[in-house]
Amino acid sequence: IETKLPKVGTTIFTVMSQLAASHDAVNLGQGFPDFDGPQALRDALTAAMNSGKNQYAPATGWPALRQQIARKCESLYRCRVDADTDVTVTSGATEALFAAIAAVVRRGDEVIMLDPCYDCYEPAVELNGGIAVHVGLNPDDFSVDWQRVRDAISPRTRLIIVNSPHNPSGAVFDPGDLDALAAITRDTDILVLSDEVYEHIVFDGREHQSVLRHEELAARSFVVSSFGKTYHCTGWKIGYCIAPRALSAELRKVHQYLTFCTFTPAQVALAEILEKQPEHYLQLPAFYQARREYFRELLASTRFRLLPVSGAYFQLVDYSEISDKDDFGFCEWLVANAGVAAIPVSAFYESPPPDMRLIRFCFAKSDEILRTAAQRMSAL
Amino acid sequence: IETKLPKVGTTIFTVMSQLAASHDAVNLGQGFPDFDGPQALRDALTAAMNSGKNQYAPATGWPALRQQIARKCESLYRCRVDADTDVTVTSGATEALFAAIAAVVRRGDEVIMLDPCYDCYEPAVELNGGIAVHVGLNPDDFSVDWQRVRDAISPRTRLIIVNSPHNPSGAVFDPGDLDALAAITRDTDILVLSDEVYEHIVFDGREHQSVLRHEELAARSFVVSSFGKTYHCTGWKIGYCIAPRALSAELRKVHQYLTFCTFTPAQVALAEILEKQPEHYLQLPAFYQARREYFRELLASTRFRLLPVSGAYFQLVDYSEISDKDDFGFCEWLVANAGVAAIPVSAFYESPPPDMRLIRFCFAKSDEILRTAAQRMSAL
Ligand SMILES: CSCCC(=O)C(=O)O
Ligand SMILES: CSCCC(=O)C(=O)O
Repeated sequence: IETKLPKVGTTIFTVMSQLAASHDAVNLGQGFPDFDGPQALRDALTAAMNSGKNQYAPATGWPALRQQIARKCESLYRCRVDADTDVTVTSGATEALFAAIAAVVRRGDEVIMLDPCYDCYEPAVELNGGIAVHVGLNPDDFSVDWQRVRDAISPRTRLIIVNSPHNPSGAVFDPGDLDALAAITRDTDILVLSDEVYEHIVFDGREHQSVLRHEELAARSFVVSSFGKTYHCTGWKIGYCIAPRALSAELRKVHQYLTFCTFTPAQVALAEILEKQPEHYLQLPAFYQARREYFRELLASTRFRLLPVSGAYFQLVDYSEISDKDDFGFCEWLVANAGVAAIPVSAFYESPPPDMRLIRFCFAKSDEILRTAAQRMSAL
Repeated sequence: IETKLPKVGTTIFTVMSQLAASHDAVNLGQGFPDFDGPQALRDALTAAMNSGKNQYAPATGWPALRQQIARKCESLYRCRVDADTDVTVTSGATEALFAAIAAVVRRGDEVIMLDPCYDCYEPAVELNGGIAVHVGLNPDDFSVDWQRVRDAISPRTRLIIVNSPHNPSGAVFDPGDLDALAAITRDTDILVLSDEVYEHIVFDGREHQSVLRHEELAARSFVVSSFGKTYHCTGWKIGYCIAPRALSAELRKVHQYLTFCTFTPAQVALAEILEKQPEHYLQLPAFYQARREYFRELLASTRFRLLPVSGAYFQLVDYSEISDKDDFGFCEWLVANAGVAAIPVSAFYESPPPDMRLIRFCFAKSDEILRTAAQRMSAL
């Protein structure tokens, strides 16, 4: 059988997690915490299941959850979100991203994405007949060169995908980024898809620059987030998309045929916890900043060079003092010889800079695991 | 914004459930039970959550669940299923259907579907650039006229979608149906997508004719099922697809970018219950046959004419003695005036037979609800 996705194999996250398992290595590759969220959330889910909330939720999402999402966004980002028409609950942010792309990208449409970027954007565009146009982020600090983005725009451009806090680099937008994005899409038909799954994980007192803060931009944007990163439950796969009514209507048409709806008891439980502990996410910056500091201190005396991290839960390191292998080769070597799994950063690029020697570690891990990993790496 | 799905609105299931709610009606429309599955399943899910199973499952599915699915299919259908390469767990059967279609349907490919059929097939085909080719089932008994299917095959035919037990009619395949399907696809490149979500709900001592029973056919088929119907938890959205390694590989490429993986604790719990109570599904035929009998007796003295039902949990009725409205109009009237929601059968057709006067009731409901519905309808 001829493949529709010739460039696609198994995702790098799966490959590295499998290698980690087979070498009994510490897995700092695939991004997920090794600790759980609040017990109250799990208890709420159990209560929902045991009180008969086990049938289809409305396709758009459990109404109380949509309301809590709308309320949270309004209070954080000073925007207006209509829970009935603008919020759609999906099976993880991945489904929301796919549904947004499927809803608006037509055959031959171009979609601009900023490399390095998450690996699901391009296959989703290709499956929908679109053409991925890759624009590199500034290689020094992973900021956006908006002039380069503007230069990549053509009459076929349909969508620009942005992501802040940024995976894999941890770079975060400044307010000026939203203005620049608004300026280059003004008076065009170009839509924006903003992947904000790390919205609550920003460091050093910075503010997350949600597209929802920017009224003009929000009017032509899909904003995607999820609960996996906020409640330390990446395996729950409850995401959502916020978009103006007309865009949400198109996304919902697709969503109802992709998955129809998502696991009801978790939706009920999340609605409850968002209502009872509306400020849970305010702890996350300090919590993850402490993880970041701890991991950076542990690696400070190694020959890995640590890049700055402003958000999300990933640490990029340059290993060029240790090895001149390429990053895939180095990750393979590292997992087999040091027992630590990482992600090669070139996996996030269409054409990686030739001499890049960067790998990504996830620091959403317990002290002990980070310590074990650092010990293993300090001998290198 | 111009729509990519001009024919699509909100699904009929959502529309009727909303009407049911707004009229405070008994909802026999959208197909879901009003009772729960085994407590042991919910307890297993709670235990999984509370023992740290809250992060990403492998994209292909929790290994123990894939093994239990493979074992179940092997013992029921006397086939060989490799849990590692042939089974993929998805976010409901809907995602499995979409992923299979997205994996193999290219622009311009034709996909044959048998009307009446479930409403997600055609939009999934269209979003993937394919062309839906509708072939009518025999109007008297909803059996397949394989000669008509053969006549619909063209050089562009890529896929044939079949569904037994059949939604909405409850018709089930005979062994001869599998042979006929095998014969018309023999020595072609045509693949088969078999929607078997009601596999365990067949009546009157009949056997479910899974495509997996038919070695030749299974070699070119995606077989889709789900746990929602088997464990009375349609809101859990755990489905799966079984296909030979090469087809599964293509489906998995798509699945990893559609949802990546599905709610981990439910996968862990389902694996446990399938291991501990491997024959749970054997109760389902008697259980649902009793529901069917009860509902049919309740309606026997009304002016609704009951069609035969061999599987699934839907009862078609002809209301032509009561009204000459079309079926949408009659459903609207019924929910508003009798307080009972049903589904118009023409929603399952591209072009419904002009004089069809059929609506669908779901009988996966408690005695009391069925009684209330029947009482309300007996006055008509
Ligand atoms: C869905 S697996 C990948 C998880 C993740 O977001 C990452 O590691 O970047
Ligand atoms: C996903 S809502 C539709 C449920 C169903 O299978 C039906 O009612 O036919």
